[in-house]
Amino acid sequence: MAVYKAPLRDMRFVLDEVFKATEFWQSLPPLAEVDRDVVDAVLEESAKLNENVLFPLNRTGDEEGAQFNNGVVTTPKGFKEAFRQFAEGGWIGLGADPRWGGQGMPKTVTVMTDEIMFGVNPSFALYPLLGIGAALAMSQHATDEINDFYLPRIYSGEWAGTMCLTEPHAGTDLGIIKTKAVPNADGSYAISGTKIFITGGEHDLADNIVHLVLAKLPDAPAGSKGISLFLVPKFMPNPDGSLGARNTVAAGSIEHKMGIKASATCVMNFDGAKGWLIGKPNEGLAAMFVMMNYERLSMGIQGLGASEVAYQNAAAYARDRLQGRSATGAKSPEKPADSLLVHPDVRRMLLKTRAYNEAGRCFAMYTAKYLDLAKYAEGEQARLAADRVALLTPVAKAFMSDRGLEGTLEAQMCFGGHGYIREWGMEQYVRDTRIAQIYEGTNGIQANDLMGRKVVKNNGAYVATYVAEMRAAAERLQGADVAGLKTAFLASVAALEALTQAVIARAAGAPDEINAAAVDYLQAFGLVTYAYMFVLMAAEAAPKKASDSFYADKLALADFYMSRVLPELDGRVRAVEAGAAPIMQFAEGYF
Amino acid sequence: MAVYKAPLRDMRFVLDEVFKATEFWQSLPPLAEVDRDVVDAVLEESAKLNENVLFPLNRTGDEEGAQFNNGVVTTPKGFKEAFRQFAEGGWIGLGADPRWGGQGMPKTVTVMTDEIMFGVNPSFALYPLLGIGAALAMSQHATDEINDFYLPRIYSGEWAGTMCLTEPHAGTDLGIIKTKAVPNADGSYAISGTKIFITGGEHDLADNIVHLVLAKLPDAPAGSKGISLFLVPKFMPNPDGSLGARNTVAAGSIEHKMGIKASATCVMNFDGAKGWLIGKPNEGLAAMFVMMNYERLSMGIQGLGASEVAYQNAAAYARDRLQGRSATGAKSPEKPADSLLVHPDVRRMLLKTRAYNEAGRCFAMYTAKYLDLAKYAEGEQARLAADRVALLTPVAKAFMSDRGLEGTLEAQMCFGGHGYIREWGMEQYVRDTRIAQIYEGTNGIQANDLMGRKVVKNNGAYVATYVAEMRAAAERLQGADVAGLKTAFLASVAALEALTQAVIARAAGAPDEINAAAVDYLQAFGLVTYAYMFVLMAAEAAPKKASDSFYADKLALADFYMSRVLPELDGRVRAVEAGAAPIMQFAEGYF
Repeated sequence: MAVYKAPLRDMRFVLDEVFKATEFWQSLPPLAEVDRDVVDAVLEESAKLNENVLFPLNRTGDEEGAQFNNGVVTTPKGFKEAFRQFAEGGWIGLGADPRWGGQGMPKTVTVMTDEIMFGVNPSFALYPLLGIGAALAMSQHATDEINDFYLPRIYSGEWAGTMCLTEPHAGTDLGIIKTKAVPNADGSYAISGTKIFITGGEHDLADNIVHLVLAKLPDAPAGSKGISLFLVPKFMPNPDGSLGARNTVAAGSIEHKMGIKASATCVMNFDGAKGWLIGKPNEGLAAMFVMMNYERLSMGIQGLGASEVAYQNAAAYARDRLQGRSATGAKSPEKPADSLLVHPDVRRMLLKTRAYNEAGRCFAMYTAKYLDLAKYAEGEQARLAADRVALLTPVAKAFMSDRGLEGTLEAQMCFGGHGYIREWGMEQYVRDTRIAQIYEGTNGIQANDLMGRKVVKNNGAYVATYVAEMRAAAERLQGADVAGLKTAFLASVAALEALTQAVIARAAGAPDEINAAAVDYLQAFGLVTYAYMFVLMAAEAAPKKASDSFYADKLALADFYMSRVLPELDGRVRAVEAGAAPIMQFAEGYF
Repeated sequence: MAVYKAPLRDMRFVLDEVFKATEFWQSLPPLAEVDRDVVDAVLEESAKLNENVLFPLNRTGDEEGAQFNNGVVTTPKGFKEAFRQFAEGGWIGLGADPRWGGQGMPKTVTVMTDEIMFGVNPSFALYPLLGIGAALAMSQHATDEINDFYLPRIYSGEWAGTMCLTEPHAGTDLGIIKTKAVPNADGSYAISGTKIFITGGEHDLADNIVHLVLAKLPDAPAGSKGISLFLVPKFMPNPDGSLGARNTVAAGSIEHKMGIKASATCVMNFDGAKGWLIGKPNEGLAAMFVMMNYERLSMGIQGLGASEVAYQNAAAYARDRLQGRSATGAKSPEKPADSLLVHPDVRRMLLKTRAYNEAGRCFAMYTAKYLDLAKYAEGEQARLAADRVALLTPVAKAFMSDRGLEGTLEAQMCFGGHGYIREWGMEQYVRDTRIAQIYEGTNGIQANDLMGRKVVKNNGAYVATYVAEMRAAAERLQGADVAGLKTAFLASVAALEALTQAVIARAAGAPDEINAAAVDYLQAFGLVTYAYMFVLMAAEAAPKKASDSFYADKLALADFYMSRVLPELDGRVRAVEAGAAPIMQFAEGYF
């Protein structure tokens, strides 16, 4: 049987000790009322609900999958009841504005509940997540009238939401979408076209589904500057919120996928469906990006959550499984064999996974802190925070999901042949996590965003600020027991700084250099960022290490990361330095 | 629709130009009669059968899976007819001794047909493969009487074979198996116990199944020195080969797996089943290792085959899919968008996969050459070849399957969201390939074998010979266009040599250092080995590069590998150098 316990102590360490959340919240007037005790209750309740209700549905949901029958999508057994319980607990609106029934919790809280939810059941998590994302985009771009009507119903779980972007011929390149929006006499629009890969496009969890749809107005300019955003409900609501006629939007089929099988991925056909413009004409992509950025951090957290549950199960298996003997002599001579934990390579796999998880958790909180600052601070502080969010969002999405997959693979390997058997559950973590690297913009697209828009375009300004901050943080490491950590970290920061300048210099007049460098640069950036997270954690842990092995272990894991994981940076740097020429020298016909 | 064409031109380049196969065969008297034209016909026929018959069954086999019903295993639709055709074509006995009906083809031929077979249908491939492995172990350890009776029936496909090692509590650690063999009065043995993960333990492709089973005699010493090997047929054969009574061995169930779903992975229950000792009492593990080593190279080739078919499909998709514009200006302004091939990062993924495939193909042939030498040469030459095989087998199994998985993942990513959808087939390549890293000894076990038995135990003697050979080969690179290649390669060889000495020195008196270094060392070893393969190919291609872009492209791919892939070596070296301390500093209770 699979095991999972929400890593609450590690979360509290990050929240209270590394980021000093109470002080942080009190420094921002709109968050001054956030009560640390209430947050603790939220974490405890989240752990309970997720461990007891959603986790048991993870494997059964995978086995059963979402079912499609004549336009109707049925979620696996238990999902409906669980969604009801989830909604009634207020979890959908946890981070939403109280004006629309939300709990008003900052991102620095919801990153933790998101991790728990993605750890126990990523297929389930996507249903509320899409509604939350749609509501977020609406809250910033729709009229008060629309928001006051729709958002409370989404946050209560009465209605659900989707984002409809991709078309069969248009994925990354949304500029070439074909879905059309023709004005009706009453101020609404008739939307026609086919959208694919629509997560939760149709299901049985909520009474209504609110689709946010990208489409082109009749007179729209070509390309991405001619895309508008529309709200298209599955059922036309009456003014009192009761449901009227079925709109002409329907699921044509659902996809059969590698994983997240309980999440319905739908082909949606819009056949003159009635919709309303959200935001300004031809500015739909910008409105949708509010939602996309929200989802992107979530996809990184999906990788983290999966890697955490995979670690917990692999560690449990390694403790229990007796196989072989320690190279230094039997450790349990009274038993037929020693536990897997005597073997250095098994430990290496576990420690690597755990290092990714602890750094990833800290990085999720770090990013959340800047999201909160961007939203709740003012003036220059908010602007700088928004820049930091812009820089880190592609890293959070791509690096956390990449290392999430790697973590699930390492954990699966600890099981030997049993890891390949469905019954044990480890292979599902791998299959489910793979999508996090692909959707919401592939990790290659994230890397291109980082390298092009977030680094080269501003001539490295965002990176320079980040590097300065990292160097300042390293000064918090004082004393012999963190000297090695400090040296290794500062060397990695210098390498990232030099690499950044090198790419910027080379990209001048040679735009292919950006995309050629992108993925290896993002990996280098992520590796240094995780090193930074270990520095932040070590700075808190070092003075307390005599008091509790918890803190000594934090320092030990930082040491493991620096000596056995961070060296990957060297090769990434050299690969970027080799530039685009080795890639672009081939004629198209070669492939 | 998935595409696959056997890469015959690349195979012939490796066979004829890099390894000069005809001269090689003529240098070995038992192979002097191998006819190059016949080999060509074999390759053409293999391509035809695999592309037309086995490839179409790959996805349907995955969808349908092997079915278990009351002890009976049914293979997916079409498998039975395909197996018949495969057997009648003489493919099972392609590399077998003509004495038992084989074609007597050297390993330097069968590596190529193996690659094609694993590329088109790994689930199918395992059925004949297990019979071939069992027959190989028997041919070296069973009596003439047994071999003359059984082997022709296995090579004709009339009967199939298995290897039964693993038990629920004993995987890597076979020393603790519990299956018992009690002598009968007639010289046979009664075998009782449960074996798991038995590939092809039960199925409907052959009339009889010959199980090779590890079990313990009543008076056997404890541990791995007390294991004997037994032959246990599913049906007791009559002296004329007709089938008599059913033996008391049966499948209790089959596993539900992440992939290779058309391959039946069985729990086998032996209930006093009648069997015969193969080889000497208590020396069964050594006999089984003949088979294991054969399988281990095959598992590397499984990774290669999968990565090749994945590459071909990703390249086809990238050519056809129009998305976005080149950063240097539209390349197909008449179309709504450029093809994916204008994007450097898409090329990077394709080139990485292709580099693994071309180096892997060359390495498979290189290993096969030494297998042929070990088998067909004499005296010192054979002994040295056996040493080289011992050194390279864990690398071939682990590195080729590791890079095979990486190749399938990169190729899947080229498809964006479509890569996650079963219909496109890319996700199946990932799922099917994952097992190659796990079975026949996990890649962590391979790494431990390399680091411990093949490197440290002989004080680096095998590596020293290999390094000397690589340095000599580098001298074949002459001229400005291969100067960079030569420099980069020699630097990597020096790094591997130094690393080898460092681990040997550190492991003296600190045995945990071996397993702590193992996986990163194997990756370093594999990276340098693939660089060596590019050197061997470049040495042939360089003088011909003006004659045909085929050769110029070989040099370009070598350049890509050296500049964009090989740098990974740096980080691997540093990780090994960090040693066991960062791993072993944690108490067991930490995990």
